[in-house]
Order: sequence, then C-alpha cells, then structure tokens
Amino acid sequence: MSTLSIIFVGFGNVGQALARLLERKRKMLDEQFNFDYRIVGIATGRHGMAFNPDGLPMENVIAALKTGGSLDSFHTGEKLRDTFDFIRSSEADILFENSPVNHKTGQPAIDHLRAGLEAGMHVITANKGPVVHAYKELTELAEKQGKRFLFESAVMDGAPIFSLFRGPLPAIELKGFTGILNSCTNLLIGLMEDEKTFDEAVSYAQSIGIAETDPSADIDGWDAAIKVCALSTVVMGVPITPDQVDRQGIREITPAMIQEARAAGERWKLVCSAHRVKDGIKASVRPERVRPTSPLFSINGTSSFVQFETDVLPGLGIVEGDPSPDTTAYGLLADLINAVRGR
Amino acid sequence: MSTLSIIFVGFGNVGQALARLLERKRKMLDEQFNFDYRIVGIATGRHGMAFNPDGLPMENVIAALKTGGSLDSFHTGEKLRDTFDFIRSSEADILFENSPVNHKTGQPAIDHLRAGLEAGMHVITANKGPVVHAYKELTELAEKQGKRFLFESAVMDGAPIFSLFRGPLPAIELKGFTGILNSCTNLLIGLMEDEKTFDEAVSYAQSIGIAETDPSADIDGWDAAIKVCALSTVVMGVPITPDQVDRQGIREITPAMIQEARAAGERWKLVCSAHRVKDGIKASVRPERVRPTSPLFSINGTSSFVQFETDVLPGLGIVEGDPSPDTTAYGLLADLINAVRGR
Repeated sequence: MSTLSIIFVGFGNVGQALARLLERKRKMLDEQFNFDYRIVGIATGRHGMAFNPDGLPMENVIAALKTGGSLDSFHTGEKLRDTFDFIRSSEADILFENSPVNHKTGQPAIDHLRAGLEAGMHVITANKGPVVHAYKELTELAEKQGKRFLFESAVMDGAPIFSLFRGPLPAIELKGFTGILNSCTNLLIGLMEDEKTFDEAVSYAQSIGIAETDPSADIDGWDAAIKVCALSTVVMGVPITPDQVDRQGIREITPAMIQEARAAGERWKLVCSAHRVKDGIKASVRPERVRPTSPLFSINGTSSFVQFETDVLPGLGIVEGDPSPDTTAYGLLADLINAVRGR
Repeated sequence: MSTLSIIFVGFGNVGQALARLLERKRKMLDEQFNFDYRIVGIATGRHGMAFNPDGLPMENVIAALKTGGSLDSFHTGEKLRDTFDFIRSSEADILFENSPVNHKTGQPAIDHLRAGLEAGMHVITANKGPVVHAYKELTELAEKQGKRFLFESAVMDGAPIFSLFRGPLPAIELKGFTGILNSCTNLLIGLMEDEKTFDEAVSYAQSIGIAETDPSADIDGWDAAIKVCALSTVVMGVPITPDQVDRQGIREITPAMIQEARAAGERWKLVCSAHRVKDGIKASVRPERVRPTSPLFSINGTSSFVQFETDVLPGLGIVEGDPSPDTTAYGLLADLINAVRGR
C-alpha cells in the first residue's frame, strides 16, 4: 500500500467537506483501492498557509479556520513566499485546487494547476474556469507528465458526467444536450412560484448560502453558460467560451409570467442547451416554459439535470438531486481514485 | 490490431440491431479501441444455425431471416449437434447470448453462458435471467477464466447502470433505489390516461411490439421484479429472487382510479424500489400515485428511470428515454468494448 501526500489550494466549504469525506473513507480506500493518504499542506487566500510533511493535524486546522484563525501556526520548515512556492516545494502527489471561479479568465486556478502538473502531481479541481479556458493545455501537459487533470465536480457537483463519457459510454457520438445546470436560478424561480418576489427569493437564497453576495453570475446566466462551455469543450470536443453562448438570465421573468405559466400547468426554467451545427456548436442559456411531460419540469430546488442526445441512446438523462458541499467533495474523491487507478 | 471472432446465440430484433450497429461502428472500433471483428456463427431457436470461420455474409443472413428462411444453408463444416456443440466448437472470442428470458430459472441462457466461459470466451447478454439466477457462479467462472460476464442491457436497455457502479462511482455506498423499470406497463398506464381501456391499451402495445402475446410477465410485475433483483444482486451486493419482491402488477388500476389521479394532478406509476434493512433488502413493485414534483412523474411512454440513494450523492437519477432494439444493442456493444479493454 502506498501513502499519497495531498495538498489543497483553497480550503473553504468544499475543501473541508473533502477532508472529512477522505477521513470517513480512509478504510475503504485502503481495502478497495490499496492506498492511504496524508494531507501535508493547505494554502488559503485569507487564512495563510501551512505545510508539514508528516501530515497536518486536520481537526485542529478545521477548528482554527472555523474561528477565523490563520494556518500559519501549523506551518513547519522555511517560510513560503507564495502559493506557487507552496505547490512546488511540497513534493506532493495530489493537488486539490479549489480557489474561487473566474468565469472570464480561469485564473489563478490555471496557474496553480499548471504548477502542480509541472511538479509531477495529479491535479483535481471543481473549478469550471480552467476547464473552459485551459482544457487543452492542461490535458496535454498532464499527458506529457504521465499525470491527470480531472474536474468531475465542475458540472453538476459530484454526479458522474465527465467520467461517464470517459468510461461507460464508449463509441458513442454526442449530438447535443439540454438541461438545468444552475442550482441558484432554479431555486429562485421555485421560490417565485411560491409567491416570493425576486428580491425576497434572492435574500432567502443568500441566507442559506446558495446565492452569493453579488448573485449576478448566477442570475445573469454566466454560471450556466460556463457549464455549457465545459460540457461542449470536454464531452463534445468543441471548445467554446461563455461569450459564444446565446445567454439570457432570469431577471426578466416577472411574477405575472410565473403565475401565467402555473395557470397553464407549466413552469419557467433556465434551460441550457448545446447542439452540433455545420460549423461548430450552437449553445444557449435562456428561460423557457416547460410542460409536465418534460423531464425538466420536476427538477426542483437546487437539483440539476442534463439529457444527452446521442446516436445510440435517444434520451439519456442524469439527475442530481439536492447537492451540497459534500456532493462536490464526492466528485473530487472520485477523481482522486480515478487518477490513482488510471480511469 | 486484433480481429475478434463473434458468435450469437439467439438472433432476433436485438441481435440483428447489434449486427447492424457493429457494422456501422467498425471504423470507430478500429480507430479508438484497436480491434476488428468477424461474426462467425449464429444459432437460433427456430431458424437453424450456421458457422463459418471466415465470417458469415451478414446481409444475406439477415435477408434470409426476414423472409422466415433457415440459416442452415450458410453453414460450413461438420453438422452441429446442438447449441452447446455450436458454442464449444466455434473457438470464438465473444459470445452474445440473446435467447428468450426465463424469469423463474434463467435457463437455457445460463447453460449457454457457462459453456461460452468454459470455452474461453467473454460472454455478454441482455438477458436478466442469468443475472438473477447465476450472477455469482458466472462471475466467479469468468474471473477464473480471465474473461468477463457482462449484461449492461439487462436493466434499462443500453443506459449505463452496471458500468456506472463499476467505474465512475468508486467508494460509494448504495442504500437503495426507486424507479420505473418496466416500459410496457408505463406505456399502458399512459394509454389509459388517454382514455383507452386496459384491453385497448394492451392491444395497441402488442401491435407496436412492446407487449408480448402473453403480456402477463409485464402486467403482473414480474419483469419489473426481476430487474429489481438484478440491481439488488449486482449493485447492492445482495442476491434476491423475484419471489422475495413484494410484487403487485397494474391489473387493479381502473380507469376511474386513473381519472381520479389526473383530476388531482397526479399519475399512477408502477414503482420499483429496494432498500437495505437490518437483515437484507426490502424490495417492492407496486402501483403508486406520484405528484408532479416527483422525477417519476414525467417518465412517459416506454421511457424508464432509476434514482439511487447513496451515502454521498443524495439523489442521483438516470433517465432512459424512448428505448428500442438499437438501444439494447448499444449496451451489448459497450459491454464488448469494456470486455476487450478490461473495464
């Protein structure tokens, strides 16, 4: 049995959920996949960084973060100059990159992932930015290094999407997909169906941690658009960026429109889609009224859904119900296992 | 590049769809998976059998079957005594077993598959019988022989279910599942919602090839129950047989009940479920009224659905829309590729 050394860049809710999940699955990882692990380093944006080759005391680390403390006191060895120094000097086997998403550039996550690959690590992220803005570069670099760049949790949290096309769906031709990929807007529309105003719905979603302080990335369809781009880039093999998506958010859906749809037995949904056309991909994110006969109709709250149109399976759909940071953490764990076993 | 020799036992709609699909994907199999194939033998229940080590002329074979002819004229070499003689003497690499399902015993498919494994072939089937009645024996025999026993199409046609749990969902604990697994009854209930009587619905389903001449295996829930057993046996690791499923078919759903549900905005569905309990699995197949908020609500016509309850993904669902013999054929092809590449 080998022991993998793991570092984290970014250690918010998802990183902490992953640390807990790894601990809970430690015995299973040993029994089923023949490896143990040690978390040797964590670098954060606002709480300092720490490295200890013997493994960090994770309970104490998480407790310190909960009270807003710094990680610096857990650090051993020479002072680290910056995150890149942290990555390069760690000699770790695995980098989990969970810094905040930048829809426009994918940075600084791309630079972190590149540094990890150059230093000989498998690199794993839930961040959509690098998938859309640097998929080809990072995948080629990973191949050159004999390592993996994996990102299952970038779309639909831990639900298996990218691994589905790497594994169980060989020799399939993907023509397009349709789905609901943004949890926040789906929740907001549902709250407006329950007669909350738009502002009340946003406030509630912020209070439970689903909407961000500035919710525009969700509301204006950017998050949905970048997910469409990630799917198009990876599973359809056609790289596109969010500005190429015909994008419309949910700001113009009025309470009257929602009640009118309800009266007709229908629901508004923020529908994502992409289809092959002669010269590439036609992709859109826009509000649509859907009927009860549509599989989109019953996607409630923060759940999400995608249906793939292929040459051999006419309507293969994947539902992801009730996600949480734990769900995202599972996608990261699955990537870790798949990197180790070469899947 | 290697050339695999393939034999078929049973060659109805699904077998013929697979032969067409293999031909269509021949170039892709070569380019992506580095193998070619040759169909060297076919044994049928009522149309004779044929073996030719140089490959059968498949267009002529299918044309002969379409007009009700026999395969015997395509046979080369010594006369074959029976299906077992056919399998053993073929020296093939791959056996596709597609004889009719026997819910009670899994025979004669089990004997065919055992003979194929003993003769050193990968064996692949869409038949649920052997999965429920001989999973352990055939899987152990396959391991001993360094070959595979695969059956992706046994549940939800070609949708990836078994391969999902072999691959993209590592280290997951499956607590249970709920779904709609029988296409025929789902179609029948839908037709009754459109105000057809039960008998009219059955006649229509028979006319389009969805219901069998004796439709009782579907209507009384046996097909759904054996699929529940196949999932329980393989993905939950707890072998159960159809008589252990609390089973109720759709005969007692009256037009009045259907209209009453519709008036309340609900639908009747034949719901399959299984959950871990202290001493094993509690499994049922029974009609239930579902609400529009349930993902089961929008499963129309011959589509099917399953939602898995796991320790890490709270509601992972798979939808299979509009299946056909081509869909089943794709599951068999995926099994072939996975057998060859060891997935």
